[in-house]
Amino acid sequence: MGLRAVSTQTLQRLPMYLNYLKALPENKKLNISATMIAEALGLNHVQVRKDLAIISKGGKPKVGYVTDLLIDDIEQYLGYDSANSAVIIGAGNLGHALFAFTGFSEYGLDIVAAFDTDESVVGTTINGKMVLPIDGLSSFCHSENIKIGIITVPAQKAQEVCNMLISSGILAIWNFAPIHLVVPENVLVQNENMACSLAVLSKHLKQKNRE
Amino acid sequence: MGLRAVSTQTLQRLPMYLNYLKALPENKKLNISATMIAEALGLNHVQVRKDLAIISKGGKPKVGYVTDLLIDDIEQYLGYDSANSAVIIGAGNLGHALFAFTGFSEYGLDIVAAFDTDESVVGTTINGKMVLPIDGLSSFCHSENIKIGIITVPAQKAQEVCNMLISSGILAIWNFAPIHLVVPENVLVQNENMACSLAVLSKHLKQKNRE
Repeated sequence: MGLRAVSTQTLQRLPMYLNYLKALPENKKLNISATMIAEALGLNHVQVRKDLAIISKGGKPKVGYVTDLLIDDIEQYLGYDSANSAVIIGAGNLGHALFAFTGFSEYGLDIVAAFDTDESVVGTTINGKMVLPIDGLSSFCHSENIKIGIITVPAQKAQEVCNMLISSGILAIWNFAPIHLVVPENVLVQNENMACSLAVLSKHLKQKNRE
Repeated sequence: MGLRAVSTQTLQRLPMYLNYLKALPENKKLNISATMIAEALGLNHVQVRKDLAIISKGGKPKVGYVTDLLIDDIEQYLGYDSANSAVIIGAGNLGHALFAFTGFSEYGLDIVAAFDTDESVVGTTINGKMVLPIDGLSSFCHSENIKIGIITVPAQKAQEVCNMLISSGILAIWNFAPIHLVVPENVLVQNENMACSLAVLSKHLKQKNRE
């Protein structure tokens, strides 16, 4: 489609636009302008206009976008129209919860297998999907052409698991361990630091208590 | 303790330091310097030194910190030593997973109740904890002195739920709905945008495929 690369900031706003557009009542759904979206989401309308111009060619002056076509364009841009298969390493508490969570399919992610070293977990099924021994990770990723790995092991094991994923051909890592991972340039790490989020919340409450 | 306020960047690094320190083998545990932590985590040592100086007064030139005391100082700073009670709104797929997840207690968070409007969910228990009808939210938060609310409802319901939380006395909101929430100045919103993370991962893979 020849679309340009976008900034992370734009990428962060696209799912917001998508959710807003999908939630519009049917009778308000025909056309939508960048200004309307900006007002509804509390964003700058120049920014929204730029974002949409990058990912869709459907905008017309004074009319805006046909809502359904804009939804299609955003979904296609975000890759939600084609599922990405992923493996998850660490079937402990958090890993189990993510592996069992079916809502990721909405965003084009399909976690097809979990891997663990713990013998009490290996061989069990979660939502009909198997927890496999870590020894089989590399052959599984290569044969199934898996490119996304999710890390939910304790922090002190995360770099080791990360190295295993990279030698298994993984190109994108979703890291839930609160640690900085060292990876080659062609591998992307997306950190999901829940501990940090909780620290920010807790800090805010402490400050409020002091006031 | 008269500690200074820290930047979000510092706050994001503190859980990393904590994990690293806790994972040190016992025989290496007596003393630790900012430089050692910086090298292990791939961070700038001046930055680590500054971060630690803010949250602990235990650092000595050429010796560093007594590891166990530094762990205590970070935990106290982050509020992990005193549990914060929270409620979660939306006991659907993601809400259920978070409500059932027991690992948050490690970070000082205790999700004491879930609320939902769906009659098929209300009255059920998850890990021994009740899903309550949304009508009871305000009285529950006031009587239990709850200050943290977690939003796991669909995006189009999130602002409404957010308003209910605020009128229930909530001061800090952990928002998993991919939408911008409008809140008064004294309320903090911490966004956990998994859809965005997935978009970033998926985008990276698309670009790699094109290369």
